[in-house]
Amino acid sequence: MEGNVEVEKNHERKAAPDGRIYYSYADVHKTLENMVPEIKKFKPDLILAIGGGGYIPARILRSYLKVPILAISLELYNDATETMCSEVKKIQWFDETTEIARDMFKKKVLIVDEVDDTRTTLEYCVQEVIKTNTPRAIGVAVIHNKLKKKKGKFPANVSYFVGENVPDKWNCYPWEAVNYGHDIETHEALAAKGRA
Amino acid sequence: MEGNVEVEKNHERKAAPDGRIYYSYADVHKTLENMVPEIKKFKPDLILAIGGGGYIPARILRSYLKVPILAISLELYNDATETMCSEVKKIQWFDETTEIARDMFKKKVLIVDEVDDTRTTLEYCVQEVIKTNTPRAIGVAVIHNKLKKKKGKFPANVSYFVGENVPDKWNCYPWEAVNYGHDIETHEALAAKGRA
Repeated sequence: MEGNVEVEKNHERKAAPDGRIYYSYADVHKTLENMVPEIKKFKPDLILAIGGGGYIPARILRSYLKVPILAISLELYNDATETMCSEVKKIQWFDETTEIARDMFKKKVLIVDEVDDTRTTLEYCVQEVIKTNTPRAIGVAVIHNKLKKKKGKFPANVSYFVGENVPDKWNCYPWEAVNYGHDIETHEALAAKGRA
Repeated sequence: MEGNVEVEKNHERKAAPDGRIYYSYADVHKTLENMVPEIKKFKPDLILAIGGGGYIPARILRSYLKVPILAISLELYNDATETMCSEVKKIQWFDETTEIARDMFKKKVLIVDEVDDTRTTLEYCVQEVIKTNTPRAIGVAVIHNKLKKKKGKFPANVSYFVGENVPDKWNCYPWEAVNYGHDIETHEALAAKGRA
């Protein structure tokens, strides 16, 4: 679905002195809100949040879409050997015996994550959902899509929703402020400077 | 654990003209950050996020605690008949056959939700976790505890972590801004006014 990468969704933000791009909570919230009209045309019945990154955007989107969230958790391991393989590991998957999973073939499922980087995790998630109980339709929604060569691919019938296309830089999200040594006020100030 | 309801954690915020109390994303983030030193003494091995409300605080806390999140989803149904019973329904539970669930008896589990209102959902969650595979220790962490008579109870050995004790009013969280008819800027402005 590379064709869906629309140039008008590029938002130029200035990098901070550390070379990273900072996003405030309000930035993330507004970017998601802007995606809602397009996502509503897809009419999802269910959100599948990929944790850790997908929990916050999924919860924000739920207020607009008013459909249940199933949460899973995946981790991407990059193999540092010659092969440079990437392997995705399931930390949590949904219980396939529950009603919500058994009925998935009737549902339009919206997979939500914070960023589409190499697309490896997203491809894995789409393929595993198809294996579990192929939904009636699959959509993928991310706050940010990094403009770069992707390792993963989506099947042709997957709908792809992007908040903003962004350069291949280090994105700093507010819920990770402490990981960059900042309190939330400093983080939000860095985000405001990047927008200026 | 009513004894843990400490008066110094009360934060007086002014209600908005609609009688509700508005919290910004930074308010929530800072309140959670302030809880971290106390939670670190408990040394959780695993966060159990109660969705929908727990997804966002759980993800923010994870940046500080650096332990995995398992997400579940519970819904509270209030019976409007004479009995006024409240019933909790599992929308999603964790897969009890996974390694992380099988090992739970070895772990200190921190259950995270946004608000402790009647305590019904939290009690249900604690009891179900005990039934599944009694953890080594259970903690419960909420951003806000409403100062009111509780219907639910925690077992005596549950550690209870509260960001702020708040009056029994309607809390408006930023991720639900649209449900109150506000865009995020208006919501954050109402939160700032309430702090003033």
